[in-house]
Amino acid sequence: MDDDNRTARWERRAGTPLAVASLLFLASYAVGVLGEDLPGPVRDLSRAVLYGSWALFIVDYAVRWRLSGEGPGFVHRHWLDSVVVVLPLLRPVRIVRVYDAMQARRPGEPRMTLQARVMLYAGLSSSLLGLSAALAEYHYEHNAPGASIRTFGDALWWSVATLSTVGYGDVVPVTVIGRLIAVVLMGCGLALLGAVTGSFSSYLMQRFARAGDDLGPRGK
Amino acid sequence: MDDDNRTARWERRAGTPLAVASLLFLASYAVGVLGEDLPGPVRDLSRAVLYGSWALFIVDYAVRWRLSGEGPGFVHRHWLDSVVVVLPLLRPVRIVRVYDAMQARRPGEPRMTLQARVMLYAGLSSSLLGLSAALAEYHYEHNAPGASIRTFGDALWWSVATLSTVGYGDVVPVTVIGRLIAVVLMGCGLALLGAVTGSFSSYLMQRFARAGDDLGPRGK
Amino acid sequence: MDDDNRTARWERRAGTPLAVASLLFLASYAVGVLGEDLPGPVRDLSRAVLYGSWALFIVDYAVRWRLSGEGPGFVHRHWLDSVVVVLPLLRPVRIVRVYDAMQARRPGEPRMTLQARVMLYAGLSSSLLGLSAALAEYHYEHNAPGASIRTFGDALWWSVATLSTVGYGDVVPVTVIGRLIAVVLMGCGLALLGAVTGSFSSYLMQRFARAGDDLGPRGK
Amino acid sequence: MDDDNRTARWERRAGTPLAVASLLFLASYAVGVLGEDLPGPVRDLSRAVLYGSWALFIVDYAVRWRLSGEGPGFVHRHWLDSVVVVLPLLRPVRIVRVYDAMQARRPGEPRMTLQARVMLYAGLSSSLLGLSAALAEYHYEHNAPGASIRTFGDALWWSVATLSTVGYGDVVPVTVIGRLIAVVLMGCGLALLGAVTGSFSSYLMQRFARAGDDLGPRGK
Repeated sequence: MDDDNRTARWERRAGTPLAVASLLFLASYAVGVLGEDLPGPVRDLSRAVLYGSWALFIVDYAVRWRLSGEGPGFVHRHWLDSVVVVLPLLRPVRIVRVYDAMQARRPGEPRMTLQARVMLYAGLSSSLLGLSAALAEYHYEHNAPGASIRTFGDALWWSVATLSTVGYGDVVPVTVIGRLIAVVLMGCGLALLGAVTGSFSSYLMQRFARAGDDLGPRGK
Repeated sequence: MDDDNRTARWERRAGTPLAVASLLFLASYAVGVLGEDLPGPVRDLSRAVLYGSWALFIVDYAVRWRLSGEGPGFVHRHWLDSVVVVLPLLRPVRIVRVYDAMQARRPGEPRMTLQARVMLYAGLSSSLLGLSAALAEYHYEHNAPGASIRTFGDALWWSVATLSTVGYGDVVPVTVIGRLIAVVLMGCGLALLGAVTGSFSSYLMQRFARAGDDLGPRGK
Repeated sequence: MDDDNRTARWERRAGTPLAVASLLFLASYAVGVLGEDLPGPVRDLSRAVLYGSWALFIVDYAVRWRLSGEGPGFVHRHWLDSVVVVLPLLRPVRIVRVYDAMQARRPGEPRMTLQARVMLYAGLSSSLLGLSAALAEYHYEHNAPGASIRTFGDALWWSVATLSTVGYGDVVPVTVIGRLIAVVLMGCGLALLGAVTGSFSSYLMQRFARAGDDLGPRGK
Repeated sequence: MDDDNRTARWERRAGTPLAVASLLFLASYAVGVLGEDLPGPVRDLSRAVLYGSWALFIVDYAVRWRLSGEGPGFVHRHWLDSVVVVLPLLRPVRIVRVYDAMQARRPGEPRMTLQARVMLYAGLSSSLLGLSAALAEYHYEHNAPGASIRTFGDALWWSVATLSTVGYGDVVPVTVIGRLIAVVLMGCGLALLGAVTGSFSSYLMQRFARAGDDLGPRGK
């Protein structure tokens, strides 16, 4: 059996556990950031879950490196995976892939159109990304001197205003780490949002073209 | 007669009354929000119109559910309709469909191009959406402590600056509900505006391509 | 000779004088707005030029209405022309058409690509639009109480930040008329800028596709 | 041997030295702007490197003008090169071309897709542009009265927020030169960023279309 098959088999087997671990990572990170008043044992448990799922991501990375049979070039060639191992908060974004795959397998219903799938994929990814960024931003900002992001609600509001490129500027990060998180959010998020906009636009065009001379596009 | 036909027939018959009800809903909502100094009976009447048209939307939803012959899956499958029943302020956006259909039926004039129709559709939808959002934003913000949206003019200005993603930040919502409305406006509005931009760009390209070597594009 | 030909002949003949009048209108408007310290006669002259060119626009509109042989429907059907007659500051945008036509006629040089022409057209249009908006904005804002647009430099800066949708919000209009001008600028400008972005993106794609495996795209 | 060949040969030979000079120019500009506390000799050396590389750019421009055999029309026809000779800080953006060419020549690996190359090209260009703009902005702003860009970190933060069109407005240029730099950054940067967004969107579409009914898009 050659290496490619083994990698594919690993990905098929590890997919669901890793998706669950990603959600657990996000949830335990949220507990750690927001649950400052929770009893000690709960916080300890959430921290254990956090590091446990991170360990799983590292194991997955190591296994795939091994199976690939590549040398140090693997780190460069799979740079996105390498980044995600160091910044596991970006990991939940990949859950969307599993969700999309599940949608694909459901036998009874007709498949969504290509545009709908791109919109769903990019929309969900940017939502998860925005949520992760809001958590991290709140974590690093809310106690900083002169901070304008003081509650988690502020952080969410900032995150949405940033992703949509509206950027009111009423709440902004002031710390160095907070600004770095913002830069990552802008970089990843804008591309994803552009994909949502682009595919919606193309979907609308298609709908109108198909509708021809009858009643126009019909709301879903 | 099969179910699909009955649904289509219902939509054909109910289309115009529902469009009128949507406009009445928007108008009576505006009266309720802006007409604080109107005499009591006028306000009572507008409230009656408001709930009356809402009731019509619910009846329409129920009838279509019935005619579809589907179980609880209808709520999930027609999720956009389900959202609109709960947030009827989004309803007026669908008037545009009726307007487009009327344009299509007028026999005398030549049909607009595909791009022009998408631009008109997305432009009108986002205008109505912006108007509804400004009304709701004014409603929830103008008495909040520390609010910067104090007049309906401020709310309209905020709404346009948000839809265009300019986002000056001179007037911003400060309440939780106000921010939720803003998130909905960004979500729906940006996609619609992307469609306007995209179709205008493609229209311009086409126009230049057709103009070939002669006088260039001619302003309408 | 039928009506269409007469309209075309009129447009051919009136094109250059109208373009000159448009530039004169813009220049005299700028003198009126910015030259508050100029001697009286100069200001009177510029006002005369302003109303003179406006009168020319009205004559052009009337002639074309006459030649079209249409009734009141002309106003609706040529709504963009009707708007421009009332708001002649939008007129200079149409100069671009003449410039494009001149480019097209020059025999010696090879024609620009479609994307380059769309970029040039949309780029020049939005520059002229931004300049007009900055003039008008300065006119209505710089003496308003609480204004942040106090110099013409501020107005230009605001205009660029608005057209690019960056929208810092450090200088913003505060009067009703100032905000209406801003809404028009956002509406027209964003669509034009979307066309610039879109055609640049498509130009880059084409260039890379053609470059194939050799040296990549070559800076002009 | 005709002129075109000689130009091509010159570009092939001068490509790498010019790319190195571009990086040296950027580096020595950064030392000049940021290294105010460096010992005098180091600052003198960096200034020498700065003017040395600028001289190289001028030589390259002159040689290509000569080889082209054109008259003064060269300045107009190669206007982008002419601008870059006067504003050499825009030069590093062209390094990307060399990088792309190197990628193309590497024999072992498969070629990147068209979209990936456009994304890489536009992404790298806008990064270098943002870095140059931040350096220049810091240079002209950090001592201005009433400035909000006081550290180089502020300048970088402003640069990213501007390129992404988020535009919070918490730090903004206040001097005339600072605002001119901002206008150039918006003009060049937004088009480049639009190319990144557009090609990412098209890449995602393609990936989903190819994935068909299997596991969906696979993270790199």
